[in-house]
Amino acid sequence: EEVSKLLALKAQQGTEKDEKAGGKFVLKTAKGTRDFNPRQMVIRQQAFDKIIACFKRHGAETLDTPVFELKEVLTGKYGEDSKLIYDLADQGGELLSLRYDLTVPFARFLAMNKVGSIKRYQLGKVYRRDNPAMTKGRFREFFQCDFDIAGPTDPMIPDVECVRVVTEILDSLDLSEHVVKINHRKILDGLFEACGVPESQFRAICSSVDKLDKSPWEDVRREMTDEKGLDPEKADQIGQYVLRAGQDDLVEQLLADTKLCSSKSAVEGLEALKLFFRYAELYGVKKRVKFDMSLARGLDYYTGIIYEAVLTNQNPEEGVGSIAGGGRYDNLVALFDPKAKAVPCVGVSIGIERILAILENREANLKMRTVETQVYVAAAQKNLLEDRMKICAELWDIGIKTEMSYKANPKLLVQLQTCEEQGIPWAIIIGQSELEKGVVKLRHVVSRHEEEIERTKLADVLKEKLSAQVV
Amino acid sequence: EEVSKLLALKAQQGTEKDEKAGGKFVLKTAKGTRDFNPRQMVIRQQAFDKIIACFKRHGAETLDTPVFELKEVLTGKYGEDSKLIYDLADQGGELLSLRYDLTVPFARFLAMNKVGSIKRYQLGKVYRRDNPAMTKGRFREFFQCDFDIAGPTDPMIPDVECVRVVTEILDSLDLSEHVVKINHRKILDGLFEACGVPESQFRAICSSVDKLDKSPWEDVRREMTDEKGLDPEKADQIGQYVLRAGQDDLVEQLLADTKLCSSKSAVEGLEALKLFFRYAELYGVKKRVKFDMSLARGLDYYTGIIYEAVLTNQNPEEGVGSIAGGGRYDNLVALFDPKAKAVPCVGVSIGIERILAILENREANLKMRTVETQVYVAAAQKNLLEDRMKICAELWDIGIKTEMSYKANPKLLVQLQTCEEQGIPWAIIIGQSELEKGVVKLRHVVSRHEEEIERTKLADVLKEKLSAQVV
Repeated sequence: EEVSKLLALKAQQGTEKDEKAGGKFVLKTAKGTRDFNPRQMVIRQQAFDKIIACFKRHGAETLDTPVFELKEVLTGKYGEDSKLIYDLADQGGELLSLRYDLTVPFARFLAMNKVGSIKRYQLGKVYRRDNPAMTKGRFREFFQCDFDIAGPTDPMIPDVECVRVVTEILDSLDLSEHVVKINHRKILDGLFEACGVPESQFRAICSSVDKLDKSPWEDVRREMTDEKGLDPEKADQIGQYVLRAGQDDLVEQLLADTKLCSSKSAVEGLEALKLFFRYAELYGVKKRVKFDMSLARGLDYYTGIIYEAVLTNQNPEEGVGSIAGGGRYDNLVALFDPKAKAVPCVGVSIGIERILAILENREANLKMRTVETQVYVAAAQKNLLEDRMKICAELWDIGIKTEMSYKANPKLLVQLQTCEEQGIPWAIIIGQSELEKGVVKLRHVVSRHEEEIERTKLADVLKEKLSAQVV
Repeated sequence: EEVSKLLALKAQQGTEKDEKAGGKFVLKTAKGTRDFNPRQMVIRQQAFDKIIACFKRHGAETLDTPVFELKEVLTGKYGEDSKLIYDLADQGGELLSLRYDLTVPFARFLAMNKVGSIKRYQLGKVYRRDNPAMTKGRFREFFQCDFDIAGPTDPMIPDVECVRVVTEILDSLDLSEHVVKINHRKILDGLFEACGVPESQFRAICSSVDKLDKSPWEDVRREMTDEKGLDPEKADQIGQYVLRAGQDDLVEQLLADTKLCSSKSAVEGLEALKLFFRYAELYGVKKRVKFDMSLARGLDYYTGIIYEAVLTNQNPEEGVGSIAGGGRYDNLVALFDPKAKAVPCVGVSIGIERILAILENREANLKMRTVETQVYVAAAQKNLLEDRMKICAELWDIGIKTEMSYKANPKLLVQLQTCEEQGIPWAIIIGQSELEKGVVKLRHVVSRHEEEIERTKLADVLKEKLSAQVV
């Protein structure tokens, strides 16, 4: 365990070294990326298994898209974040970019294949030339686990299910308490309209509002007025709304707010959230949901409800911050195929890196096997390599996970140590005289109990022992 | 099924369209890449499960590396194939390339983390700007499934195990007969030496020999003499050897060949293969192995045994050709860390795309579920949305894979059709009068048998039915 922690630390350091070491070759991964060692892979796979189980519980099927897309597929989908897209070099042929999320390629897939309705999940790596903060789980290459429901539905039914999926997953991963913040793009648009923001500035002001989770209102206000040229009075009006948060009570209050409700868009958004809270109650997730008027989400393509899950745990080691996000995007598919029938979509994306950092930290001192070997074939003396090989082949033939030393004449003590260190439950020990008698020794590694087994019955005995045992 | 086949076909066509459609946006994936639809994903996952099971049976653990590396990590490792590497655009910062295989990043990982000994598997996508031939399974983005044994060992023990791993996997995938062609770089080098090829030309001539699986000897000879300037007489001497193939009998013949055995390197290689055949017999794979003197493999980094598995099936639909390859590369890790102790490695890479094409083709007419939903909650009349939602939440809570219609008031017939089309085994049907009586109907979809269940016992009854049934 110690070794793997040190290795991880070392790898981290290697990665964080300055990228420009003056011509000399530096042995490292690319900035903002990392390797996963076997221990991290076990933790990651366990988390993936739980996430996929949830997606399947909700009837989703999976698909896969390439890691890069035509550059124009990604163009104009990400607002201010487009500058973070990785491009491939022009080596002749098409202009390509690494995918920035799984959502836009999914919409491209739907349009290209004329799929009008699907519930799909997808796990994959995405790429952003962001400023990495590895200790906070912010990487340039990172995994997203997406769940999306595409196709015509009655209002809010799939939207609430996405929140249910997020809470099921965060609960199954045994993470601390979390809250799912929600808002609605129509409420934001209606709010901007009611406060007199010109429509051409909606997306820009929306991006500013989105920064309220990290910056105080004064800074955000300054960005609106100084950088984006918004009338200060209008900014102040916005400020009276976007700092409010609550539940369906806030929805009701705002439905009685004559100024906000002068906007048809705002009323539509509020009615939608009202329905959302009713369904959230039925799905048992209402207590997890917070209507937060400052939630805006940076991406351009959202058209309806938007969400973001944050851990509310105050354990500083585990950090806080967003670990899932998503929303409704009813017009994205049509961008790829304007003539086709609209494919309304809603979905959520789980950001697994921060979750993995928490799980790795938590399990740092746990003993954990990274191989699943069940039986080790050992020799008690020299010149038994060929006999060991024959036994291994026999056990592999019947599906038993079997290893042996790659030395021709390994020491018995070293072989038994390997078994103990690696947590291999059974060792077969062969010796010349035993082989002549037609027997082998079977050793239970933990108890060190040994018994003699007829060589011809070895496979059957092992099959029985291994199926009886929880391996 | 029909629909998914058509979709796949359509996607394929989209992808094969000429990449330069004169400025107009073409809805397609990047040249040489493809999406996997849900049906293909099921087939792929089943194949991966079998492959991973085999890797674990041989005691391997897994790790993961980023999709791109510093460009210099890949430089000088791939010989003539280096021109096929994808570079990322220089957007400021490091110069990066997409990984060309999983082997070089693995060696970089070993050097960077000072890992001296590991048995690892890795499944991941790799990238080559090759001329794609999608119908033959040659893509620019494709999966490799790698198994490698790193660290000091006695000769040939892990090398034979790699062949055993390949044959276990190809057998478990129920593919047709296959043969694993082997050769040894020291035999090739010794052969070139014995035929008087200057050492500086070894790698170039080796690349030419490697083309013998696709081109006749005349063409290869012409490349050696005309393009690479080799003395025609020396080329003819090489030709007397490289067209020979056999088993350990050929090894023995060559060990008696005084000309070849004038090279120390050749003798070492032949002795190694002699040992290889002895171990292959013990591991039960000797009949699968063919010593083929024309096998050379293009990559620069091999130093010992090299292999390539080919399907020998003559079914033209399934095609033939290489589906796995690998070899020993004892000096690659040291390229990254010249001061460290050598880490000898041997490994094999399974090319899954061609295998998937065969499996997809074979299962094209099989009915196959792409979702695992166990229970569908249906309403027999209007205004029961909230009751359906409550039942779904209850079933999700106990881990049952449950779906319902996203319409507020769906038609019963449509809901039951969904169950039948999607192969969902059970449907719960609720109606107003039944709910008032405290019961629901449970319908076995295939037999259409229905029974009344007490609403409060629904969860328990379903748990029992689902655990009794092989879902």
